[in-house]
Amino acid sequence: MGRRNDHSREELRQMIVYAAEKIVTGDGYSGLSMRKVASAIGYTVGTLYLVFKNQDALLFELNARTLDKLEGELEASLEGKDDSLDRLKAIAHAYIRFAHSNRERWLTAFEHRPPEDVPTPDWMTERIHRSFELAIRELKPALPNADDEQLQIAASALWSGVHGICVLGMTNKLDSSGIADSEMLAGFLVETMLKGLRK
Amino acid sequence: MGRRNDHSREELRQMIVYAAEKIVTGDGYSGLSMRKVASAIGYTVGTLYLVFKNQDALLFELNARTLDKLEGELEASLEGKDDSLDRLKAIAHAYIRFAHSNRERWLTAFEHRPPEDVPTPDWMTERIHRSFELAIRELKPALPNADDEQLQIAASALWSGVHGICVLGMTNKLDSSGIADSEMLAGFLVETMLKGLRK
Repeated sequence: MGRRNDHSREELRQMIVYAAEKIVTGDGYSGLSMRKVASAIGYTVGTLYLVFKNQDALLFELNARTLDKLEGELEASLEGKDDSLDRLKAIAHAYIRFAHSNRERWLTAFEHRPPEDVPTPDWMTERIHRSFELAIRELKPALPNADDEQLQIAASALWSGVHGICVLGMTNKLDSSGIADSEMLAGFLVETMLKGLRK
Repeated sequence: MGRRNDHSREELRQMIVYAAEKIVTGDGYSGLSMRKVASAIGYTVGTLYLVFKNQDALLFELNARTLDKLEGELEASLEGKDDSLDRLKAIAHAYIRFAHSNRERWLTAFEHRPPEDVPTPDWMTERIHRSFELAIRELKPALPNADDEQLQIAASALWSGVHGICVLGMTNKLDSSGIADSEMLAGFLVETMLKGLRK
């Protein structure tokens, strides 16, 4: 029972994204389908496809929203912290807490693998790079003698490391995988890397 | 057209696992279904369920084989290397090369998330821990003053870090994600961590 002309294209777009977000939050990435989204908002699947060319396009939008929310929480975690080590630990911990509090949305952002013929939009790639840029920005004062390339390498290695701890903890691949242990490990990684980088 | 009594239970088990491995290698984790496996070996889906209770049980078996193969390649990479740094870099690079050469099988080992009511078998958990134990073993000579708990934390942080670089590179979430860049980043992480740990 599709509804016609009740909503503008932009309203529809938002309804679709919100409904998809709710489905992913409840049922995970594998639980999402265009059919379920259509049924949730009372439109036909055909109408959905007029707004999003395919499920990958919808997932890009959904994941961009997740990464925007993540970025906001990473920045917020820095408040009141001055020392580089404290700041880097704060964003690492905020990253892990975000992943645990938004489990399915976070996993969806990393498990979405579009088919090879569906290119990742530039605005999506840009958002992925932003969290690395945050790490570069925070590493810079700690490594005043590093040039841009060295900073980029250090930040990529460090931030990928935090991501690895987070994802293995979330999927129970670490010995003990509570959020406290992941935060401890990430703090240890940040501290040890910083020591090594400064040497 | 199910075949009857042509194969022993053990033969069937192997046929199922090989067929599933082939499907995953070609079509990825999301391409696997009990129906496809049954059709590939010419048995009914019902016969499959006599051997594997569900698709998760089959995936545990498949992933255990992937991790066994990985372990073999990690150990092989150590040949002729004496220095701790060289040995840790060798297994990090071997890990990344294995992931790239066995892309879909490796991703399946990490993307398989069994439902909460399906417990991970002990022999599977043990295999996951083995690659961390390898890292502990290789770190030990480099950190002669570290106790067991410190070694465990250092190895978990280091090995999760290598995993993070590997998985972000494989899924195009790093700035440049060729295998060479992932190997370079992992080498940088290992070297910097070792410097920091020794400080």
